[in-house]
Amino acid sequence: MATRRAWFGGALAAALSACKRSAAPPAAEPGLLGRPVSGYGERSRFETAARVLPETRYPEVASSRTPLQDSVGILTPSALHYERHHAGVPKIDPAQHRLLLHGLVDRPLVFTMAELRRLPSISKIYFVECSGNSAGEWSAPGGRTAAASHGLASCSEWTGVPLSLLLQEAGLQKPAKWLIVEGDDACKMQRSLPVEKALQDTLVAWGQNGEALRPEQGYPLRLVVPGWEGNICVKWLRRIQAVEEPYMVRDETSHYTDLMPDGTARIFTFLMDAKSLITYPSGGHKLPSPGFVEISGLAWSGRGRIERVEVSTDGGSSWTDAALQEPRLPMAFTRFRLPWRWDGAETVLSSRCTDESGYVQPSREALVAARGLNSTYHCNAIKPWKISADGSVASA
Amino acid sequence: MATRRAWFGGALAAALSACKRSAAPPAAEPGLLGRPVSGYGERSRFETAARVLPETRYPEVASSRTPLQDSVGILTPSALHYERHHAGVPKIDPAQHRLLLHGLVDRPLVFTMAELRRLPSISKIYFVECSGNSAGEWSAPGGRTAAASHGLASCSEWTGVPLSLLLQEAGLQKPAKWLIVEGDDACKMQRSLPVEKALQDTLVAWGQNGEALRPEQGYPLRLVVPGWEGNICVKWLRRIQAVEEPYMVRDETSHYTDLMPDGTARIFTFLMDAKSLITYPSGGHKLPSPGFVEISGLAWSGRGRIERVEVSTDGGSSWTDAALQEPRLPMAFTRFRLPWRWDGAETVLSSRCTDESGYVQPSREALVAARGLNSTYHCNAIKPWKISADGSVASA
Repeated sequence: MATRRAWFGGALAAALSACKRSAAPPAAEPGLLGRPVSGYGERSRFETAARVLPETRYPEVASSRTPLQDSVGILTPSALHYERHHAGVPKIDPAQHRLLLHGLVDRPLVFTMAELRRLPSISKIYFVECSGNSAGEWSAPGGRTAAASHGLASCSEWTGVPLSLLLQEAGLQKPAKWLIVEGDDACKMQRSLPVEKALQDTLVAWGQNGEALRPEQGYPLRLVVPGWEGNICVKWLRRIQAVEEPYMVRDETSHYTDLMPDGTARIFTFLMDAKSLITYPSGGHKLPSPGFVEISGLAWSGRGRIERVEVSTDGGSSWTDAALQEPRLPMAFTRFRLPWRWDGAETVLSSRCTDESGYVQPSREALVAARGLNSTYHCNAIKPWKISADGSVASA
Repeated sequence: MATRRAWFGGALAAALSACKRSAAPPAAEPGLLGRPVSGYGERSRFETAARVLPETRYPEVASSRTPLQDSVGILTPSALHYERHHAGVPKIDPAQHRLLLHGLVDRPLVFTMAELRRLPSISKIYFVECSGNSAGEWSAPGGRTAAASHGLASCSEWTGVPLSLLLQEAGLQKPAKWLIVEGDDACKMQRSLPVEKALQDTLVAWGQNGEALRPEQGYPLRLVVPGWEGNICVKWLRRIQAVEEPYMVRDETSHYTDLMPDGTARIFTFLMDAKSLITYPSGGHKLPSPGFVEISGLAWSGRGRIERVEVSTDGGSSWTDAALQEPRLPMAFTRFRLPWRWDGAETVLSSRCTDESGYVQPSREALVAARGLNSTYHCNAIKPWKISADGSVASA
């Protein structure tokens, strides 16, 4: 720590060399009373960060991406949480919404929102990531910005009732090994969820970041299946049916399967493997000058906590451990940081994380060797960013 | 845990007795495509939670209160974070904003926002509480709702540069024991901050809950002084001057002092003592029927982590340990929960927390005995809520 402080000190002196030095207080307009208190605040009009929208004729059946290049800390503002809709965002009156729990249960139950919100609840910070995130990274150079490459991942504090409690109350019958979970959007999105995961840590969530879910996140009710692909975290949740076998529904056969080199397909690849991304500097940024740079990024894993993030500033020849911001929460974003002095020469930055299971994030080459190039989903390869001599940053 | 599960099961059966039971899926309107993806999301129009505004002719010199009775989890949405302004919310262009660091330093420095944002940063979840919070609780029955009694407290993830780093870079001189910190609102709010706390954990923050600070929280720059009264977490921060002695500025002499029974005044009572509040059920709520109730609330302490929260459901005769939601972070909200079966009789609920220093939240009587009734600030007494036989909840 002493070494590190000294290092910062020296680096900062360089970084601040361009600072104007003055002992006079900054100018201000005295006496202008500001605006009054307000009921529900909005961000400054000078702030323009926004989800990246797709170029598509069908923006109801599309995704929008979290601008991770602007991210700070580990939380994603609800207003910037990525979207992936299969039939648009339905408008649901919470007073009319119901959740049906039926099938292989002793007591079928229908819950109103008021009933659900009075049940025992928990709050947890979890990432949610579309398994199609980083699909463009199977081929180099991939997405040109952090949003383009990794923006289908976000992290929130979710509040809701454990699904295990609802299943216990309904009396899950012994043959029930899967749940068909169904949303209330126009396509009635369905997925098959193993009972084991449902009992382990799945949430029926109505809260996000301290208030109700946002409409595009499933208002008034969604599943949060910690560490598993976003598609199974069914939004606008209206029905849970206990069954013996998975239903092989449209979105787990035509989509959300991974075609392997031998022609077979992986299916029910729910778990999101460990992944990391340098968010600053990243594609589209420009380093103002040689000197101090705090490299910063995010890492996450569906297997639990992030244990280590290594950063390379020389195209992968050598790796240095980054500092991990506490608390490191299981199946949540972890912020990492590494102080670096850029010497002004062209180079490549990348990050590689290890989770508590010992799983190490692979290179793109290793991932392609194992899975081929027919997969759309589950690309968690190391992402390199190239720094040019003029300070501009691009996908490498 | 086994016992607890069984207990929940029994209680839930009662709570759910009013649920309609059906095996038919809920009605829906098929085929109506929802709305498309969007750049920056908004909450559902069915959600109306808002900060509670004061009745005043001067809403620029006023406070608004977080609706804690609606809170879920430990985070406060930025849009609902409490406000306390002494001259309204200034409109500041971040490109024009500067922070001056001067006085007893070797190298006076002026920082632009771009310079500050490139320095080494950290992100931490901290509560901020106005020391005038709960001022109405010195006399029973106090505030009628959780917002009215405790709504000048909120909790966010703050991101910024440690003030220690800026001071180190400026070269703090040995005689400098205090910092005069000044805001850029019309009144140029000033406070005196001990150097010791500045070096320990104070943040010069530009991020809140994953994006830029909100205007009413100090955009583009504020101090976050963990665990200390909100007034010293100076918003719209523009100047830090290192000095030998505190300046005894207006807001630490005419305000933010505590008049004791013997006529003396406590001054520089920065630290916020441990406090807890039951948020459900709380004033204004109505229990729908006898049976299962999850009692839920928040606890926090300026001394560090919350170690224990006890809940009484019989007017203080007996106390039961509540479950504490992990992670329990130092100087942050901690959510507590206790399952309870209401028998339909009138009773009084209250909560009492203990922090990691061993400090125990006092009763109102004990606090008044020590401090008298002339204090406005730093009321952290136990808050009782009375449940009437019709299920309505009111301040006791």
